[in-house]
Amino acid sequence: MHVIVDLMLIPLGTGVSLSPYVAACERTLTAAGLKPVLHANGTNVEGDWDAVFAAVRRCHEVVHQMGAPRISTLIKVGTRTDRPQTMQDKVESVLKQLAAEA
Amino acid sequence: MHVIVDLMLIPLGTGVSLSPYVAACERTLTAAGLKPVLHANGTNVEGDWDAVFAAVRRCHEVVHQMGAPRISTLIKVGTRTDRPQTMQDKVESVLKQLAAEA
Amino acid sequence: MHVIVDLMLIPLGTGVSLSPYVAACERTLTAAGLKPVLHANGTNVEGDWDAVFAAVRRCHEVVHQMGAPRISTLIKVGTRTDRPQTMQDKVESVLKQLAAEA
Amino acid sequence: MHVIVDLMLIPLGTGVSLSPYVAACERTLTAAGLKPVLHANGTNVEGDWDAVFAAVRRCHEVVHQMGAPRISTLIKVGTRTDRPQTMQDKVESVLKQLAAEA
Repeated sequence: MHVIVDLMLIPLGTGVSLSPYVAACERTLTAAGLKPVLHANGTNVEGDWDAVFAAVRRCHEVVHQMGAPRISTLIKVGTRTDRPQTMQDKVESVLKQLAAEA
Repeated sequence: MHVIVDLMLIPLGTGVSLSPYVAACERTLTAAGLKPVLHANGTNVEGDWDAVFAAVRRCHEVVHQMGAPRISTLIKVGTRTDRPQTMQDKVESVLKQLAAEA
Repeated sequence: MHVIVDLMLIPLGTGVSLSPYVAACERTLTAAGLKPVLHANGTNVEGDWDAVFAAVRRCHEVVHQMGAPRISTLIKVGTRTDRPQTMQDKVESVLKQLAAEA
Repeated sequence: MHVIVDLMLIPLGTGVSLSPYVAACERTLTAAGLKPVLHANGTNVEGDWDAVFAAVRRCHEVVHQMGAPRISTLIKVGTRTDRPQTMQDKVESVLKQLAAEA
């Protein structure tokens, strides 16, 4: 099952600077063979359900190992059975709408 | 790794009534040996990471089998390594604060 | 416009114990005339859009005043124009499904 | 109060194609003087708290007017008092970490 995910991982008890932990998760996702797309409020990633969620679990393990005693993560998950769809497809379908209306 | 999750599953392309799908996911979580706690904006569940996420994947499979061509799910995930904590602990710690301040 | 909201407020840079801040937000919502319903992964609240979001903003102000230099909040927002619906309605519609299927 | 938001608006009861509604919200945000940044799982926007949330409310009004009887929206909200930070700052701080570690 193909899944499109938005991942926002927040380490708690580590101060206000989250970027080292976010970067560690980016590297973890990439090491898992995924192609994370960073944005201002999270990271988008897509792939096989089990591969994506195994990498998300690995992010929690890595960030805890970095010293974060607590992690709060938000995951948006999208699946569909009517047709294949990539992250790029989702963005382009909206841009096409905006262009058509312009 | 123990995880506390808030799950909100939204089937798309199925009309405005979501309760049959939410109920199916509740039963799926229970069938997986978990104890889902329903609330007005989702369902809280806790347990071993792999058991919880396998049940979430199963919810997607079941809701697609019910005819939903597309599903958008939101998952809040909490893990901590400093001490064990249950869903009940989280609620009680806030209620204790409110009582102390009253 | 009536809105049903799930609010999860996470102060950053304040240590791992979030309950004092969550409790402060609960009191802020109550002081605004709302009836927050606490659960293990957030707080559900409903009411007029402007009243609810003014209270959410006030929660950010209060938690910053308590010393949190950074706040990350997640808000689930639900509105509908087809019929009135309360938080209790949402829970009952799912419980009714579960009872019917039992 | 400056706020950085990730907005994901899901119309319900309108079929599986969400792009016309997402595009309408993009135009609504732009018409409000904001600069939405679309990504595969939502739209990032930043600005004054009241201006941003007024535009989010307007998105709900517009999407309901387009015929969506029900809307479920997810809003990630970030505020900080320790220093000013833009959406671009957030992305660059992570990219800097990744470059340093490379």
